[in-house]
Amino acid sequence: MIDKIVALALEEDTALGDITSDNIFTLKDKSSARLVAKQNLILCGINLAKEIFEYVDRNLVFKTKFNDGDKIKKGTVIATVSGATLSILKAERTVLNFMQRMSGIATQANELNKICKKYGVMLVDTRKTLPALRKFDKYAVKTGGAKNHRMSLSDAVLIKDNHIAAAGSITKAVQKIRQNIGHTNKIEVETKNLAEVKEALKAQADIIMLDNMTPKEIEKMVAFVEGRAILEASGGINPNNLEEYAKTGVDVISMGCLTHSVKSADISLLI
Amino acid sequence: MIDKIVALALEEDTALGDITSDNIFTLKDKSSARLVAKQNLILCGINLAKEIFEYVDRNLVFKTKFNDGDKIKKGTVIATVSGATLSILKAERTVLNFMQRMSGIATQANELNKICKKYGVMLVDTRKTLPALRKFDKYAVKTGGAKNHRMSLSDAVLIKDNHIAAAGSITKAVQKIRQNIGHTNKIEVETKNLAEVKEALKAQADIIMLDNMTPKEIEKMVAFVEGRAILEASGGINPNNLEEYAKTGVDVISMGCLTHSVKSADISLLI
Amino acid sequence: MIDKIVALALEEDTALGDITSDNIFTLKDKSSARLVAKQNLILCGINLAKEIFEYVDRNLVFKTKFNDGDKIKKGTVIATVSGATLSILKAERTVLNFMQRMSGIATQANELNKICKKYGVMLVDTRKTLPALRKFDKYAVKTGGAKNHRMSLSDAVLIKDNHIAAAGSITKAVQKIRQNIGHTNKIEVETKNLAEVKEALKAQADIIMLDNMTPKEIEKMVAFVEGRAILEASGGINPNNLEEYAKTGVDVISMGCLTHSVKSADISLLI
Amino acid sequence: MIDKIVALALEEDTALGDITSDNIFTLKDKSSARLVAKQNLILCGINLAKEIFEYVDRNLVFKTKFNDGDKIKKGTVIATVSGATLSILKAERTVLNFMQRMSGIATQANELNKICKKYGVMLVDTRKTLPALRKFDKYAVKTGGAKNHRMSLSDAVLIKDNHIAAAGSITKAVQKIRQNIGHTNKIEVETKNLAEVKEALKAQADIIMLDNMTPKEIEKMVAFVEGRAILEASGGINPNNLEEYAKTGVDVISMGCLTHSVKSADISLLI
Amino acid sequence: MIDKIVALALEEDTALGDITSDNIFTLKDKSSARLVAKQNLILCGINLAKEIFEYVDRNLVFKTKFNDGDKIKKGTVIATVSGATLSILKAERTVLNFMQRMSGIATQANELNKICKKYGVMLVDTRKTLPALRKFDKYAVKTGGAKNHRMSLSDAVLIKDNHIAAAGSITKAVQKIRQNIGHTNKIEVETKNLAEVKEALKAQADIIMLDNMTPKEIEKMVAFVEGRAILEASGGINPNNLEEYAKTGVDVISMGCLTHSVKSADISLLI
Amino acid sequence: MIDKIVALALEEDTALGDITSDNIFTLKDKSSARLVAKQNLILCGINLAKEIFEYVDRNLVFKTKFNDGDKIKKGTVIATVSGATLSILKAERTVLNFMQRMSGIATQANELNKICKKYGVMLVDTRKTLPALRKFDKYAVKTGGAKNHRMSLSDAVLIKDNHIAAAGSITKAVQKIRQNIGHTNKIEVETKNLAEVKEALKAQADIIMLDNMTPKEIEKMVAFVEGRAILEASGGINPNNLEEYAKTGVDVISMGCLTHSVKSADISLLI
Repeated sequence: MIDKIVALALEEDTALGDITSDNIFTLKDKSSARLVAKQNLILCGINLAKEIFEYVDRNLVFKTKFNDGDKIKKGTVIATVSGATLSILKAERTVLNFMQRMSGIATQANELNKICKKYGVMLVDTRKTLPALRKFDKYAVKTGGAKNHRMSLSDAVLIKDNHIAAAGSITKAVQKIRQNIGHTNKIEVETKNLAEVKEALKAQADIIMLDNMTPKEIEKMVAFVEGRAILEASGGINPNNLEEYAKTGVDVISMGCLTHSVKSADISLLI
Repeated sequence: MIDKIVALALEEDTALGDITSDNIFTLKDKSSARLVAKQNLILCGINLAKEIFEYVDRNLVFKTKFNDGDKIKKGTVIATVSGATLSILKAERTVLNFMQRMSGIATQANELNKICKKYGVMLVDTRKTLPALRKFDKYAVKTGGAKNHRMSLSDAVLIKDNHIAAAGSITKAVQKIRQNIGHTNKIEVETKNLAEVKEALKAQADIIMLDNMTPKEIEKMVAFVEGRAILEASGGINPNNLEEYAKTGVDVISMGCLTHSVKSADISLLI
Repeated sequence: MIDKIVALALEEDTALGDITSDNIFTLKDKSSARLVAKQNLILCGINLAKEIFEYVDRNLVFKTKFNDGDKIKKGTVIATVSGATLSILKAERTVLNFMQRMSGIATQANELNKICKKYGVMLVDTRKTLPALRKFDKYAVKTGGAKNHRMSLSDAVLIKDNHIAAAGSITKAVQKIRQNIGHTNKIEVETKNLAEVKEALKAQADIIMLDNMTPKEIEKMVAFVEGRAILEASGGINPNNLEEYAKTGVDVISMGCLTHSVKSADISLLI
Repeated sequence: MIDKIVALALEEDTALGDITSDNIFTLKDKSSARLVAKQNLILCGINLAKEIFEYVDRNLVFKTKFNDGDKIKKGTVIATVSGATLSILKAERTVLNFMQRMSGIATQANELNKICKKYGVMLVDTRKTLPALRKFDKYAVKTGGAKNHRMSLSDAVLIKDNHIAAAGSITKAVQKIRQNIGHTNKIEVETKNLAEVKEALKAQADIIMLDNMTPKEIEKMVAFVEGRAILEASGGINPNNLEEYAKTGVDVISMGCLTHSVKSADISLLI
Repeated sequence: MIDKIVALALEEDTALGDITSDNIFTLKDKSSARLVAKQNLILCGINLAKEIFEYVDRNLVFKTKFNDGDKIKKGTVIATVSGATLSILKAERTVLNFMQRMSGIATQANELNKICKKYGVMLVDTRKTLPALRKFDKYAVKTGGAKNHRMSLSDAVLIKDNHIAAAGSITKAVQKIRQNIGHTNKIEVETKNLAEVKEALKAQADIIMLDNMTPKEIEKMVAFVEGRAILEASGGINPNNLEEYAKTGVDVISMGCLTHSVKSADISLLI
Repeated sequence: MIDKIVALALEEDTALGDITSDNIFTLKDKSSARLVAKQNLILCGINLAKEIFEYVDRNLVFKTKFNDGDKIKKGTVIATVSGATLSILKAERTVLNFMQRMSGIATQANELNKICKKYGVMLVDTRKTLPALRKFDKYAVKTGGAKNHRMSLSDAVLIKDNHIAAAGSITKAVQKIRQNIGHTNKIEVETKNLAEVKEALKAQADIIMLDNMTPKEIEKMVAFVEGRAILEASGGINPNNLEEYAKTGVDVISMGCLTHSVKSADISLLI
C-alpha cells in the first residue's frame, strides 16, 4: 500500500528507464549504500524511505536505528540499504527528494516551535502546503514538534470575509453553519478588529483568528477575550518577528512559511 | 486534459467537501476575484491557474493580460476570475499553492541567471525537484530564464562514481554505454580531479561534470579542456558563491537550490 | 472534474461497450427521457445526475426544477434529459443507481430525523458507509436533514476501549492525544458506564459517547453530566426504539443504519 | 493486486491519517483481534478481508477456518487477525463495511433462493448494484446461492422498449443485433404481453423477459411458450410475493432488491 | 470521458513537454492539418481521433465526412483539424498510432472476412489482442466486418483441457459450470477429436471448438454434429489456409492473427 | 511496483472474474505450467512474465534459465510456473500477449539489425509504437540488438517542416531552439534535399535526418557531409530495401515497422 504521490514521483524519474544504470548494471549486481546527514537536522521520512526502497524492490534490505523526530548530528549514518544496485539507484533520487524536504520542514518547525514553547503558545501550520504533498508536509511539521491546523476544507469550519459578507454578518454566518454541521466540528472565525472579535465571541465561535494584527493589537484582544475562545494569530508572522507574537499571550500562532518556504535538509546517499 | 498532480492537489483539499462554504453559499452565488502580486516577481503558472479554475468549473471566466515569464510589480492585479463563489473558493488554495511555488522558483532562477549571464555561463537545474512536481519545477526554472538539465533518468546519460567502479574505469563505462544507446543521447561523466577529466575527455564524453571543485580547480580544468567537451560545475554552489563559479570560464553551472529550497512568492486571491 | 467513483461506476457497466444499443443505434439517433419518482421521496443526487449525463456526453441537455432535499411526490417528473440515445442509455443505470441509493438514504434520514427533532436531539451518521461511497452516503444523510459525524479517521478524535487500554486510562489517553493534536479537533471518548463518564468528564472530553446503554442508563448520565460535555448515544439504536432514546435528553444520537441498511428509492428513466 | 475500490475505500477513511490511533500507538504496539458474527448469516467476504488486512500491512496474520458461503451462527468467531495495532485499526472499518454488506447480500439471497429452489426456478440479480461495487455485489449474490444475470452492458443482449421502437419491431431489432454480434452472446427480449412474446419467440430470442406481469399472466406465457425460450419474470417481485411468482413455472426470476435494498449483516471486530 | 489508454498514450509521449515545438510555437500559432490515407484501407478510429484532438485541446476543430468502416482510397483526405499548432502536434503521434493500428486491423479483417462470407462462415477474433488495447482491437475487427468472440474471461464459458482434467470429464465440467452460471452465458467446450465432440454434444454444450484440426477432420465433425451445436474451428488457421477451412461447413472460424500480427495502415498528418 | 499497463491488461481480461475457471477450480487446486517456444525466436519479456505472475499471486513460483535477448529454438521450454491453477490461468493470456509481441519485435529487430551491422550502420526505432506500450516496444527493439531513437517528445529535438516554416528557416529554428534548451539535448533537423542539408550543417545540427530519399541521394549527402553531423536515413525503408540503404554509408537508419507492423512470436503456456 504505497502512496499515490510516491508512485508518481518514481514514475516521473524512471518511467522510461535509467539509461545510464540499465546499460552498465544487471540485476545481479549488488551494492550497499548509506544515507548520511550532511547537516544537523530533525529526521523526517525514515519510514517512508524504507517503504519506497521496498516498493521499488521488495528484496532490498533497509536498516536504521533512528525514528522520525530524532535529532541527527552532521555526519551521522542515518540508515543503510543493500541489494540490487539497479534498484537502489532507481529509488535514490525519490527517497532523497522526500527526506530532504520532510527533514527540512521538521528542522525548521522544531526551531520555531522552541520559541513558541517558551511562552506556552501552540505553533501550527496552514493549508499553504505544496500541491499534492499536504500529507507529507503536515506530517513533517508535526514531527518537528509543531501542530497541525485543519487538514483540508472538510474538517474544521473557518469563516472568512467573503463568507461573512455573503451571510450578512458574523453572527448570521455562525448560525447558518451551526444549523448544518455535526457536533464534531469546531467553528473558527477570521477577524480584523475588536468589533469583529466581540461579535465572534458573542456568536460562540470556538476559535477566533486575529488576522494581520500587530503584536500590540493582539495583546488587546487577548485581554478582552479572557479565555472565552481560543485565539489564533495569523498573517505576516515570520521567523524574525515570531517571538514578539509569541509574547502576546495568544493561544495559537499559524505560519505559512512552515511549509511554503522551506530549506531542504542536506542528506546524501553514498554507495 | 488536466495534470494528475492538479487533480490530486484539489482532491486532498476538497475530497470531502468545503464544510464552511458549502453551508453558506449555493451554486447560485456569484463572485469576482482578483489575483494580486504582493511582491515583485517573475510570473509563473498563469496558464495553469486558468486550467485549474476551468477544471473545477468550466463556467468560471478567467482573464489576464500577462504571460508566464512577465515581470510583475508588487500590487499588480495579475488576473481576475468570476463565476460561482463555491467554485472559486474550491480552487483558490490549489491555484495559489501552485502559482506561489512556481513564481517563487522563476523569480529566484531569474536573479541567479542574471549573474551567470554576465559571464556567458548557462545556469541549469537538477533532479532535486519536489516529488511528483518535477514538470512544474523545471518549467518554472525555464520561465525564470535558466535552463533544464535532464528531465529524468531516461533522457541523458550521467555516469557517476558507482557506475565507474562497476564498469572498471571511465573508459570502460563510456564504451559500455555507447554500445547500447542510440544516437540522440549525450553522455556526461562526473569527475573529481584532473586525471578523471583527462580520461573522460579521451573517452569522448560530451559533457564533463566537475563535481565539488573549488573555483580555482575549475579554472584549471577549463584551461586544460580547451572546449573539447562541455564543462559543468556542480556541487556546493549557492547564491553566495555563484559569481565566483561563474567567473571560472566553465560552460554550465547546475544548482539544486533552484528547486529544492525555494521561497514561495507572495500572491493573494481577493474576492 | 468528475468523481473517481462515478468514472468507475460507468466503467464497470460500459467498459467493453453496450452490445445491445451499439448494434441498434448510431450517434445520430436522438431521444428525450424523463426521470420519474415512483414513490414519495426526498430527492438526492439531482446535481450528480446532471454531472454524470454531461460527463458521458457534454451535448446532453439535462433540465430540472428541483434541488436536492426537495420533497417529491410519487409520479413527479424529476428531470428530463435529451440528446444522443446512445449516451442516455450509457449513463442510465449509473445515474439511477446513484440517485436511488442517495434518495433512499435521504428519505430514511428525513423520517428518522423528524423523531429526533421533536425532542431537540441531533441525529448523526457513522462511518458505516458503503466502501468508497462515503462522500455520497454522508451527503445524502445531510440532505435528508440529519447531520454528519466525522468524515474519516483524520478529522475528529474518538477514543475507544483499545485506545484506553493501550494508554492506561481514559485520563492518560486524553492527555496523550491533547499533547499531539492541534486546536481545531474535538476529542470524543467512548464510555460504557458512569465511572467512565466521570473520568471522561474530568479529562475534559468535548464529547462523551454512551455506548450500548439503555434509555434508562442514558437518562442517568444526562442527569449527571448536566451539560458539561456533549453526550452522544450510540449502539443498538434502530428505527423502532429511536424515540425512546430521543426522549432521554441526550444531545446526539448516532445510527449506523442511516447508511448501512438502506431501502433504495424507486426512480425510473423513461424514454 | 488489490481491487481499486478497496484502495479507494481505505483512502477515504485513512488518507490523512488516524488522528486518534496515530497519537496513542506506535508501530511496535501489537494486538490480536477477532471478527465475530453478531447474527446468523451466510458468510461472504472472508478472502477479501484477508486481502485487505494484508494490503494494509503484509505482516498482519489473518486466520480463519471458514469459507465464503458457510453458514455462520450468531456468536461465532469468524476469523482472527494479529499484528500491529495501528494496521488492524486502519483496516477495521473498511473490512467490516465490505463484509457486512456482502454477508448481508448473501444472507438475503440465500433465503430468497430457498423459495425459488422449491419450484426449480433460477433466482438472478440485476444491474441495480451499488455504484462501482457491482463485482462485490454480484459475487455475494452468487455466494448466497442465487445466480448472476449479465455483468455489464457488454456481455448479453437485452432488447428493451426503446430498442424495439428504434428498430421498428422486435423482429427487426433481433435481426439487426444478430447481424452484428458473435456466436457467444445470447439475445434476451423484454416483453409486456402475449403478442410481444409471440414475436420474440418467432425471432428466436434465447431469453424472453416477462416484464411487470402478474403471476397469472406469467402462467399463461409459460403455457404458450412451452420451453421454446428461457422465460424470465422481472419487475415488481419482492420477498413477499416471490413464492407466487416461483409457482408459475417460469424458468428464471430476477430481483433488483437482491442488491439495491440490503440489510447489512452484523459483524464486529473485537480487540 | 476519455479512455484511460488514450490518456496514458498521450502521457508517454508528452508528459515532460515537446521540447521542439514548445520552443518554437506559442499558443497563439494556429495551423490546419489534413489526415491523409497513403494506401487503400478500411477506416477505423475516426471518432477516436476526434476525441483525442478535443481532449488535448477542446478548441481544436475536427472535420470529417467519413465514418468508421468506410472504404478509403489511397490519397483521400480523411479529415482536417485546425487550431493551435502546439495542440495538433501534441496529439499527432497518438492519433496516428491509434488510427494506423485500428485501420490496419479493420482492413485485414475485411479481406479475410470476404473469404469466409463466400461460404457463409462467421469469422471471429480471439483474446490475443495487445495488452490493454483489447477494446480498440476488437472494435476494429468488428469495423472490418468480422465478429467478436468473448471480450474477457467473464462473459462466456470456454472449457479447455485443464478444466476438463480438473473436473474429471467434459460431462462433469459442463455440469459443474451449469450449476453455477446464470441463464445468459453460453458454454463452449474445446475438443480435439470425435470422442470429445460426442461427449460435448451429449453434455449440451452450446458451442464446440474444434482445436487444431485439419479441414478434413473438421468436415467429419460437421457431418457428425449436424447442427446440434455451433462448431468453431480454431488453431493453425492463417490467411493462406483460411479458404480451405471456410469450405468445411464449420459455423465459425477464429483467428488470433486478426489482432496479434497486424500490418499498420499508412496514414499521415500533413500540416 | 507493477506497470500501469500490466494492471490494465489484467483488468480488461479478468475484471469481472473468470467465469469458467472460477466455477471449476478452488484456490486449493495447484498446477505446474510450461512456457514453450513454438518457433525460433529472440526471447523478450521473460522478467516481465515473472513480475506479472507474481503480481497476480505472490505465491506462484516462476523459474527460468533464460534472459531477455537469448536465442531460443523452437520447442524449448522457456520457463515454468507453478502454484494455484486459478492464478496461473488468470495471468496466462496477459503474460502471453506481452511476451508474444515483445519477442516478435525482438526477433524482427534482430534480423534487420544483422543487415545493418554488416555495414556498420545503427538501426533505430521511431515513435510509431503502439499506444501506451512504447516502453515495452522500445525495450524489445533494444533487446533484439537495434537501438532506440528518442523515447518521447521531451528528450531530443527533432525539427520538422512545420517547425521550419514557423521559424522562417532551418537556421532560425535551430537558433530559437538553442536559446531555450539545456546542454544535454541534441538537435536533429529533418531535410529533404542538399540545400536543406547544407543549411542544417551550417546551423550545427547534431543530427540530420534524410527524409524519404533514395539510396542514391543518400550517398550524395554522405559524401557532402563528410562526418560533420550524424546522418539518419528515414522514410520508405522496409525489410526488402533495407540493405540498399545500409550500403549508402549513412550513420543511422530508422524504421517504423520495427514496432508498428509486427508478427507476434508463437509461444504457448501448457499446463
